[in-house]
Amino acid sequence: MVVNLFQNFNKAFESKVRLGIMSILMVNDNVDFSTLKDLLQVTDGNLASHSKALEELNYIKISKQFIGKKPNTTYEATEIGKKAFADHLNSLELLLKSNK
Amino acid sequence: MVVNLFQNFNKAFESKVRLGIMSILMVNDNVDFSTLKDLLQVTDGNLASHSKALEELNYIKISKQFIGKKPNTTYEATEIGKKAFADHLNSLELLLKSNK
Repeated sequence: MVVNLFQNFNKAFESKVRLGIMSILMVNDNVDFSTLKDLLQVTDGNLASHSKALEELNYIKISKQFIGKKPNTTYEATEIGKKAFADHLNSLELLLKSNK
Repeated sequence: MVVNLFQNFNKAFESKVRLGIMSILMVNDNVDFSTLKDLLQVTDGNLASHSKALEELNYIKISKQFIGKKPNTTYEATEIGKKAFADHLNSLELLLKSNK
């Protein structure tokens, strides 16, 4: 049944930007705003809104600090976020297999 | 670069319901409304709005006919839709590989 395919499909990761954010944070411990923005080629606002949503779900942690006099924002995936995203990827894998 | 991963990522297939609709129509020539609705466990409105969007993109064809006195709506994927969805699945596959 198709519905089982989507058991672990997580709507929090539905959008392309969020898939991108998590993919990057799964393989990088800590990434700053401008790096994430360049890698994903998204606007400041787009990245800010999607990352805020992921933070509210406790899937990522956003840290703000100063480097010298310059404010710096960095992102990292939480353990909960990594697990949830891995489950989501498994659900996508099931979807792919069902389409083969 | 993450951006290349998403080259063929198609925002039209971003939502779980649309992934479900296309997955079903890729392996079934013709499916009616109630079957699609049961398989996906979605509301009438949800299915109607997502399928309408896919129809507007010419990814699916929606046919309305009478069976006896009863109106019947059936859905099928177009060739364009099948190709676009296959490309989208390839993009998801790249994403999965990059997370391995």
